[in-house]
Amino acid sequence: MENFILLDALNMSFASILGYLAGTLTTLAFVPQVVKTWKSKSTADISLGMFVTFCVGVFLWLVYGFLLGSPPIIAANVATLVLAMIILFLKIKYK
Amino acid sequence: MENFILLDALNMSFASILGYLAGTLTTLAFVPQVVKTWKSKSTADISLGMFVTFCVGVFLWLVYGFLLGSPPIIAANVATLVLAMIILFLKIKYK
Repeated sequence: MENFILLDALNMSFASILGYLAGTLTTLAFVPQVVKTWKSKSTADISLGMFVTFCVGVFLWLVYGFLLGSPPIIAANVATLVLAMIILFLKIKYK
Repeated sequence: MENFILLDALNMSFASILGYLAGTLTTLAFVPQVVKTWKSKSTADISLGMFVTFCVGVFLWLVYGFLLGSPPIIAANVATLVLAMIILFLKIKYK
């Protein structure tokens, strides 16, 4: 029984680490796009529909995080929302 | 006490609906980008670094979903991974 509890604790810990790593990567992914678009001022190949829909979706994830009281969900989605909104802003500016 | 339980059940239900809606939007967001890139065959403004990092991150979310045994996390991330990988494939093809 104790072994099962230990195994369960290890699994949960591994899952949590994986979740944080996944959230970090899907958030950091938008950094190279922001840098690229900021420098090139060219957004012809970027879909406006993608970033409008994505920003609304991430905003809902953020509200979901607040409702659940989950700091990792809140933190990841605040960062992603800021980055995705910069890309959306640049898309509209350099349309 | 019963009122609190009812309120809690309503809140959880609202949070779940919000979570599903958020997941649907952040997944569907990639559809207009796939359609745009598929038609234009032009990917100069899309960051390779963004889609490589994003695909790895979504794959880790998928593993996280399996570890947690959460069908919504699995479903949302399978769909997002397929769409993001199509964009990554097109980016590499039309580089």
